[in-house]
Amino acid sequence: MAYGGPSSPTASAFAREPYPARTRHAYALTLSCDDEPGLVAAVTGTLARHGGNILEAQQFDDLDSGRFFMRVLFELGQGAGVQDLIRDFPQTVAARHMHWRIRARSERRRVMILASAQNHCLADLLYRYRVGEMNMEVVGVLSNHPRDALDIPLIGDIPFHHLPIEPGQRDRQEARMMRLIEDAGTELVVLARYMQILSDGFAAQLEGRCINIHHSFLPGFKGARPYHQAYDRGVKMIGATAHYVTADLDEGPIIIQEVEPISHADTPDELVRKGRDIERRVLARAVRHHLDDRILLNGRKTVVF
Amino acid sequence: MAYGGPSSPTASAFAREPYPARTRHAYALTLSCDDEPGLVAAVTGTLARHGGNILEAQQFDDLDSGRFFMRVLFELGQGAGVQDLIRDFPQTVAARHMHWRIRARSERRRVMILASAQNHCLADLLYRYRVGEMNMEVVGVLSNHPRDALDIPLIGDIPFHHLPIEPGQRDRQEARMMRLIEDAGTELVVLARYMQILSDGFAAQLEGRCINIHHSFLPGFKGARPYHQAYDRGVKMIGATAHYVTADLDEGPIIIQEVEPISHADTPDELVRKGRDIERRVLARAVRHHLDDRILLNGRKTVVF
Amino acid sequence: MAYGGPSSPTASAFAREPYPARTRHAYALTLSCDDEPGLVAAVTGTLARHGGNILEAQQFDDLDSGRFFMRVLFELGQGAGVQDLIRDFPQTVAARHMHWRIRARSERRRVMILASAQNHCLADLLYRYRVGEMNMEVVGVLSNHPRDALDIPLIGDIPFHHLPIEPGQRDRQEARMMRLIEDAGTELVVLARYMQILSDGFAAQLEGRCINIHHSFLPGFKGARPYHQAYDRGVKMIGATAHYVTADLDEGPIIIQEVEPISHADTPDELVRKGRDIERRVLARAVRHHLDDRILLNGRKTVVF
Amino acid sequence: MAYGGPSSPTASAFAREPYPARTRHAYALTLSCDDEPGLVAAVTGTLARHGGNILEAQQFDDLDSGRFFMRVLFELGQGAGVQDLIRDFPQTVAARHMHWRIRARSERRRVMILASAQNHCLADLLYRYRVGEMNMEVVGVLSNHPRDALDIPLIGDIPFHHLPIEPGQRDRQEARMMRLIEDAGTELVVLARYMQILSDGFAAQLEGRCINIHHSFLPGFKGARPYHQAYDRGVKMIGATAHYVTADLDEGPIIIQEVEPISHADTPDELVRKGRDIERRVLARAVRHHLDDRILLNGRKTVVF
Repeated sequence: MAYGGPSSPTASAFAREPYPARTRHAYALTLSCDDEPGLVAAVTGTLARHGGNILEAQQFDDLDSGRFFMRVLFELGQGAGVQDLIRDFPQTVAARHMHWRIRARSERRRVMILASAQNHCLADLLYRYRVGEMNMEVVGVLSNHPRDALDIPLIGDIPFHHLPIEPGQRDRQEARMMRLIEDAGTELVVLARYMQILSDGFAAQLEGRCINIHHSFLPGFKGARPYHQAYDRGVKMIGATAHYVTADLDEGPIIIQEVEPISHADTPDELVRKGRDIERRVLARAVRHHLDDRILLNGRKTVVF
Repeated sequence: MAYGGPSSPTASAFAREPYPARTRHAYALTLSCDDEPGLVAAVTGTLARHGGNILEAQQFDDLDSGRFFMRVLFELGQGAGVQDLIRDFPQTVAARHMHWRIRARSERRRVMILASAQNHCLADLLYRYRVGEMNMEVVGVLSNHPRDALDIPLIGDIPFHHLPIEPGQRDRQEARMMRLIEDAGTELVVLARYMQILSDGFAAQLEGRCINIHHSFLPGFKGARPYHQAYDRGVKMIGATAHYVTADLDEGPIIIQEVEPISHADTPDELVRKGRDIERRVLARAVRHHLDDRILLNGRKTVVF
Repeated sequence: MAYGGPSSPTASAFAREPYPARTRHAYALTLSCDDEPGLVAAVTGTLARHGGNILEAQQFDDLDSGRFFMRVLFELGQGAGVQDLIRDFPQTVAARHMHWRIRARSERRRVMILASAQNHCLADLLYRYRVGEMNMEVVGVLSNHPRDALDIPLIGDIPFHHLPIEPGQRDRQEARMMRLIEDAGTELVVLARYMQILSDGFAAQLEGRCINIHHSFLPGFKGARPYHQAYDRGVKMIGATAHYVTADLDEGPIIIQEVEPISHADTPDELVRKGRDIERRVLARAVRHHLDDRILLNGRKTVVF
Repeated sequence: MAYGGPSSPTASAFAREPYPARTRHAYALTLSCDDEPGLVAAVTGTLARHGGNILEAQQFDDLDSGRFFMRVLFELGQGAGVQDLIRDFPQTVAARHMHWRIRARSERRRVMILASAQNHCLADLLYRYRVGEMNMEVVGVLSNHPRDALDIPLIGDIPFHHLPIEPGQRDRQEARMMRLIEDAGTELVVLARYMQILSDGFAAQLEGRCINIHHSFLPGFKGARPYHQAYDRGVKMIGATAHYVTADLDEGPIIIQEVEPISHADTPDELVRKGRDIERRVLARAVRHHLDDRILLNGRKTVVF
């Protein structure tokens, strides 16, 4: 009787997976701008002239806002240089209010994770990081609790910053946090159940590069203790929401939401436990989509390709 | 090449299914009361003395409210009389604030459906009724639109009542509705997207026997045009909620909720279309659970066995 | 207390929805071919030169098969003629083994539905058709049962063909079916739980334009009575699969699959009932995706944009 | 701007949660036997006479097999002794082929986990164990790989057994495994993606106390490399199945199944990655249900209350 096939060799399970063949010399282009005819032709014509071959692409035109969104995964041949493409791009594609970026798929983005005593999202992200599932470099873990209290062996040699909360010192603490974030060259901040007050200014500085997990199916149960709110209301499903952080609490652009059924027999403690599973899954998917250049901001909303 | 097995004989597909063998002479007992030790023993002892055999049962003790809930499906042997059981029951089982009911599983409850121009829930319920999927007798369809406007051939010979809305005449109209409901011996009223104002008094009179479908995942997007609210907020899932009607708008005890994923490409019209599928599924399940004696009221919540 | 917003006017709920504004003068281009660099640029360049504006598009490159797939929704301006575009297209875009099609979004495809005694999928498709949810023209309903037996009032004035199965006459019956299908100008055949033997030749003739619903989560429980198989095996979920019909039974390219949880308490009859809901939902989605030009064949598989 | 409520105190997040108040002095009774009238009355009467108060209970009568199943959570008052109840039980409740057990809810069952190089299920179970989510004592981790290769810091001081596979030595290795399992007083063996051949005899010895996770939605894709099979077939969902191990490969009684949608763009590697999430979730739920006395064997099937 066999369970599954032959076992893989005894190499460390934490060794980074070699990047799959199909993404060697591969790049992601993301672009948003005011819509006008001919955009896709201009972009893909430029790619073609530089020897690019498209692997996967999506385009979307928001008729409400008049904004156009595009994501292209493409490969460049051996001799072709991405720097030439990047230099030529703005001359060949011109549209109003255009944001664009070309990024090598092999590039790992620099991520700082903020966590509090609820450590399940932190533990989950670090496990996925260690097995090579997330295309990122964790440049630091920051918490208002000491490292021993978090008790996550997977932190290993990742720089750990303990910034305890002191009454009346929020501004000073946030200034130190921002310095740590910037000094580490952080490209994405992940609030992995970081249960602390952030000022509007701090949130604004991180706009579009800070993802939070809210432990409810927004817009239901905003604010504190959402699982207890859900229990009191007697809903039959609970959920979690990953969104970009904005100055407006629980109102940032939503990336992903998921739910699970519950029953009358679930106590608030059981909702909290079930919620942990949803939260860590939703947060990991949102971070992964961000690292995969799948999310484009569209005002208060997101386009997720 | 065959698709599926041999076809069933050419009898009308609308013929009522013969009630399955396992529920012949079967009964459902539902009971809620203040919790005290020995309740299950007292109830099941009484059933056993009357020759009852339990097919399926659930019990739940809400430690918050101190209320106990029980549902028992049981069979009685050939000679045994359910009337004896019903007569003896209150003498052998006594608890504070006890509500109980014993109902033959073969009994079809009398249901009145209220509908407006959005007819998908009405059409769905009537289809399920016609194929024998719902253990009910539809005693009437009531609408503020004329029958021709609803345009549902499945209404057939079911009594149809057209009560147009006239400004300033709500009290009079509701009095007529209530008379129709009562005259038909209605045991359950279903608001199948009946988009009209109901007074608090009307709602209160139907407490525990009137199910509504709300086209959002409550408590998110209460009130009007929830799909447009969802579109504006940029959520990534939409849902529907079936609940008992109370005087408190969109706050009645929730029976069932379901959701489906949506994307940035879904227009409000597409949300409305996708929502129709969720609504009719959720409403049918809630009505079915009610007819199946699976739902017990627990204050502002429900116990769904 | 209001349930939902103000009711819509008393126009017939079955009136066809006016086609939404965003798809006026809109077209869908679908294309598959052997992959080569520059394809997207060539296609979108051609569209741009003919005044096309892209609303939504997807591209996918299957690295295994070396095939490239593309779907573009685009609008043409007032003066622009789609006939010019269609004439120029093959000259400006050339690739090996290319299949392409440009279709007006307002065009309703001609659909023939085949049904047996299990009429839930037929009833569901016709309801969706009547409320304007499916962009199709039902040109006929064909059954081995007489119309009275099917008992679906929604058939209304749609041509109904009764072709009873006679032993040893399959070839003759299939020839008659094919003639009816072709005479009606049928573009898509839907097997809405049509539980009859089809010959390999018949299936081959309809390749890529005949959708079947199989009442299991393939590849589990192929063949007859899948719900009874599921019950006997004690699985905890049941499902349905919509796929294109091929000569190879239950092996055609899969379009959509969905499942629902079940429990030990579900009898085979209850599985059949729950399955009806899944089947009709899955079949409707698959047909809708086909009508929406979202599905491209990729050998034994599908690309669903 | 606050995310969530106030943070919890800086105690170690790995400290075991104090067992919630509602389960103090609480017990679980599970029972299966041939059905006969009066069983529930006899059982609950016995509980009542011993001062038991029922918190939650379910009963189910399988009309096919004629077997009756029951699970009761109950509390005993201060003075009441569970030993008296256990002693009296067989005298007051007698039925044919009866299996029954009364277990303190606070009792942690002894669990041995077997793992191979795919360590995600092991890592997940250990995390849940460390945060007090699983009511178990992990008495050992056993692998055919050395501890360094598994590289799971959470193993900590749990006894680790490395039993490398040597060709032609399976019998000897299994004998050593069984001795380790028995010596540790193991009550449940969990195959957390343990990808090795087990003999029929070994499987038979662990019947009803060994849970495996199969990385497909059984009965689809039995055997090796199910994600590659799924990719080749072009299915639109993948899943995982937790089941009790029997001598019959991939045919043991199913406990839980779950699925997730996939698309044409998912490579086999991506299916493997997505599958890891489903596998660890499904396995954890199955183990949790087992520890919670929710699963009763019913021949080749399970009853899951």
